[in-house]
Amino acid sequence: MHENKYPVVSHARDSRFLALRSLQTPQGRSRTGLYIIEGIRHLARAVEHNAPIESVFLEPSVLSNAFGQKLARRLRKRGVPGVRLSNQLYRDLTLAAEPQGIGAVLRQQWTPLSILSVGMSSLWLAVESIESPGNLGTMIRTAEAAGVTGIFILSPDCDPYDPATVRATMGSLFSQKLVRCSQREFTSWTKSNGVALVASSPAGLMDYKALRYRFPAVLVIGSEKRGLSDQLLDVADFVVRIPMRGDCDSINAAVAAGVLLFEMASQHLPG
Amino acid sequence: MHENKYPVVSHARDSRFLALRSLQTPQGRSRTGLYIIEGIRHLARAVEHNAPIESVFLEPSVLSNAFGQKLARRLRKRGVPGVRLSNQLYRDLTLAAEPQGIGAVLRQQWTPLSILSVGMSSLWLAVESIESPGNLGTMIRTAEAAGVTGIFILSPDCDPYDPATVRATMGSLFSQKLVRCSQREFTSWTKSNGVALVASSPAGLMDYKALRYRFPAVLVIGSEKRGLSDQLLDVADFVVRIPMRGDCDSINAAVAAGVLLFEMASQHLPG
Repeated sequence: MHENKYPVVSHARDSRFLALRSLQTPQGRSRTGLYIIEGIRHLARAVEHNAPIESVFLEPSVLSNAFGQKLARRLRKRGVPGVRLSNQLYRDLTLAAEPQGIGAVLRQQWTPLSILSVGMSSLWLAVESIESPGNLGTMIRTAEAAGVTGIFILSPDCDPYDPATVRATMGSLFSQKLVRCSQREFTSWTKSNGVALVASSPAGLMDYKALRYRFPAVLVIGSEKRGLSDQLLDVADFVVRIPMRGDCDSINAAVAAGVLLFEMASQHLPG
Repeated sequence: MHENKYPVVSHARDSRFLALRSLQTPQGRSRTGLYIIEGIRHLARAVEHNAPIESVFLEPSVLSNAFGQKLARRLRKRGVPGVRLSNQLYRDLTLAAEPQGIGAVLRQQWTPLSILSVGMSSLWLAVESIESPGNLGTMIRTAEAAGVTGIFILSPDCDPYDPATVRATMGSLFSQKLVRCSQREFTSWTKSNGVALVASSPAGLMDYKALRYRFPAVLVIGSEKRGLSDQLLDVADFVVRIPMRGDCDSINAAVAAGVLLFEMASQHLPG
């Protein structure tokens, strides 16, 4: 295999490994603007979307899949730098339940608020705060499938480039416009662009299916435990409610986002 | 605190601790028919639903919440046996990110297929196989919120009493009828009770929102990776499709279950 020509890193104190490992931490990611993906599917989608791949890391003995090997060769031929990790270091780095033997370091891509173009019938998602990285990733994947144009991240603690988030997006991260801004910038963006701000709350007056949504629209999702903040509920144009039947007062935040986004999407986007 | 009268267990080889710990394994659960819950919310709901509580376990120094302490006292007064665990043992047992200092051993409750009563407009969920315990728990919670009457578990590997599943149900497990049976028993149940079997597949001919569902109905969900088996797709009365927009070929199985169940529920159940 050509990718065997990448240098081998087998010591946990090797600076190349330490640089990779630092990307598991929020500090490391925010200092460098980089993040890590793992697995053949994720890497293939990154290549497909021309995501900015800075380097690759391999564990050739784990990378048995022929398509994965071909991907590694192609990247090496394109001049992408890389390392081969020992089995132990690869596992320490990726924490994957079923490691696939190939991963990459990518540059984070944030879209500035100022250059967003707002289509007449566009649908957006805004995440006020989400505690679980997996839930955030599932939401990003769901939003992509529902056809949203972009995702706002309104909390500095909420990191779409967390490894657990990236894993749960199943590769849908690369085609999404991600915008990080303050709540004030966000609400002023909705106003100046005529975007309907839709919030969801158990106290909402309107069944989410009864509302005829107007577009462009943005759905705002709050934290799993506390829901949306009063500030955002106060400025929302519509507060809808998902009716809870049975003995249940809430559903998972990512499931709620899915139920609401697919209803909104069905009202205006071609299937 | 009265609950201080429970005996203290602080040694990892104490048979009382070993008995508790065995319930973390599928073998231990299936041998005893018991399972473990942790946390005040879960325990309160178990009490509320008269779930069969066999014993409790406490870590009094962690149980600072007044409502939780009251709950512990009430159970002790009712004669429920219990132990106090050392902090280390409590953490080893529950694996909870934020342990609340109280948990219980409950008896599993399975409803026999033969005694199910099938309401004219009832909605059901059947899980063919789900790899992630968390996903299964999220589905159970979602199904409860959407108003389903009961949940079929069609794979012996799929355990709603796995600790990670129980945690994700957020206490909605106690009000659900759970039925474990073979695929053959399940399909013969749908036929003899006139229950419409609804499957979901990317190859489905009908948009899930375009179908007027007939009831009683059961939604069948397949594995995250492989989807539904051909056997179940073949016997389905309706195969619907969730339209995927953007660059996405699938969504999370629990989100898909939520999108479909809430659509089905909205077509016939009062909000």
